[in-house]
Amino acid sequence: MPASKEHTLGEFDLIRRFFASETDADGVVQGIGDDCAILLPPPGQLLATSVDTLVSEVHFPANADPADLANRALRVNLSDLAACAAQPLWFTLALTLPEPDTVWLEGFSRGLREAAQKFGIALVGGDTTRGPLCITIQVTGAAERPLTRAGAQPGDLVYVTGELGAGAAALPLVLSGDAGASHWVQARNAFYYPQPQLEAAALIAPFASAALDVSDGLLADLGHICEQSGVGAEVHAEKVPVAELAAQTLDHDAALAMAVSGGDDYQLCFTVPAQSRSELERLVSAGVLEATEIGRVIEGNAVRMLKSGAEWQPPATGYTHF
Amino acid sequence: MPASKEHTLGEFDLIRRFFASETDADGVVQGIGDDCAILLPPPGQLLATSVDTLVSEVHFPANADPADLANRALRVNLSDLAACAAQPLWFTLALTLPEPDTVWLEGFSRGLREAAQKFGIALVGGDTTRGPLCITIQVTGAAERPLTRAGAQPGDLVYVTGELGAGAAALPLVLSGDAGASHWVQARNAFYYPQPQLEAAALIAPFASAALDVSDGLLADLGHICEQSGVGAEVHAEKVPVAELAAQTLDHDAALAMAVSGGDDYQLCFTVPAQSRSELERLVSAGVLEATEIGRVIEGNAVRMLKSGAEWQPPATGYTHF
Repeated sequence: MPASKEHTLGEFDLIRRFFASETDADGVVQGIGDDCAILLPPPGQLLATSVDTLVSEVHFPANADPADLANRALRVNLSDLAACAAQPLWFTLALTLPEPDTVWLEGFSRGLREAAQKFGIALVGGDTTRGPLCITIQVTGAAERPLTRAGAQPGDLVYVTGELGAGAAALPLVLSGDAGASHWVQARNAFYYPQPQLEAAALIAPFASAALDVSDGLLADLGHICEQSGVGAEVHAEKVPVAELAAQTLDHDAALAMAVSGGDDYQLCFTVPAQSRSELERLVSAGVLEATEIGRVIEGNAVRMLKSGAEWQPPATGYTHF
Repeated sequence: MPASKEHTLGEFDLIRRFFASETDADGVVQGIGDDCAILLPPPGQLLATSVDTLVSEVHFPANADPADLANRALRVNLSDLAACAAQPLWFTLALTLPEPDTVWLEGFSRGLREAAQKFGIALVGGDTTRGPLCITIQVTGAAERPLTRAGAQPGDLVYVTGELGAGAAALPLVLSGDAGASHWVQARNAFYYPQPQLEAAALIAPFASAALDVSDGLLADLGHICEQSGVGAEVHAEKVPVAELAAQTLDHDAALAMAVSGGDDYQLCFTVPAQSRSELERLVSAGVLEATEIGRVIEGNAVRMLKSGAEWQPPATGYTHF
């Protein structure tokens, strides 16, 4: 609405000072402050782009620390770039806020700036509006040979990077908001500071046949690879690397259930032709890639989970619902 | 949150069927359905990108027709591409909805599809979340020589495309929601179906020195050009083309005030070096460009409004606030 818009812009003009443009970043011809950001894409590469919205009380507690929140918002988006083996270029922020709270904005913009610097991505544009707290970030990266969920073939090996289950194990602790609780620091780090696997993605890009990031849970996400590739998969539960936070805060079976069905890990699940195993194991042995072989791609259309050689169904995890 | 996310995705999976991917669009290697959209930017061109959020009850009435709303959401973003003389390539949609209302979604997706086809832009990705109704669209276009707000020089002529004041005059009618009211159709068209000036932008791009779209109101927007270009401007109120809807529904002074201070017109305001006037007038005479010379760029840093040769301050417009 024109008048309320002027009014809102008046109020929200102050927001600009929190999100300074980074016109010195590579390829950014014009950053924040014009009708559009003007960008020079790296020649000869494809672009990968992904958008995610976080809504207060749906995706995070309303009283979350704003710097933590900014980190999560940017990092989960960067994880989508990692899933495609794209390297970060630039991002935009659409921020809806009930009021221009300068303390909150200071924390949020600081967290965002730190995360952006850490992962080498430039904030090039955005929109700030009045309304219920809602954060939409769109990231764009470049890839010579982007990985997708399609491309897995029967006989390929299934790998995951890092360890799984920390994101889901962290959730009840994060929701409690009890900074004095045991494992609070690990839970906060797992939930708000996931590590987008950009370096791992660059290492596996030359030979992986399919990839995605584990956001909905390993079983569900591997199911997406199967669906898009027209294959099935077989996973050995014992081989799934369980995150320390899950192992320390839950009994063995619950921790394993979190690792296979929990979400929010932002590790990569990827498939590799069998003839590339030695090359992959070389990267793992050299300590440059943390990845574990957990199963293989088979004919079919479903993910089978095996434990001690028998078909196994992970128990319902019973997370706290928001 | 993992569990609520699964839950939400379950509910919202149905949304996918409303927003089919357009993988046959130029440069779209992978549309909706993977972690990222994979895009091939046109070689040798710059990209222009802009993001805007519309929040229910802040930017539009909650009971707005969803097809109307989709049109407005996409068209106001396309207007930012026109402001930079960029031609549309692709866009993403981050849609937050209280519940997956299939009737609403059918209307919204139909409106979005129609607008996207009309302006030749492909929906390549998005995110759907549960929460208060909120629509974020990010458009990307390509430009060989993008126009910005900087570049106006003293002596340049100031032009606007089309007519001004319709957006602001439409607002009280649109807010009334009274489809039986006199001028309802014109008001609805002005507010929900603004015409992004993409063709005009392509015509003026070779010789315009600065440009933007009139979203905050002519005076405020021309002020943005002055600020970014380090110049002043002088506008003759009598020369400002007043939209029919404003002229028909308001007295002469109020209509003029809407034209110079109202917002939401999505026409272009641009500056042209004096030596290009004849070329511009030729386009206007030939009927391919609708543009009116309304003033000139001067030394200084402010916009001066003249009426009958004397300094003139438009009266406060007193729009309905949302």
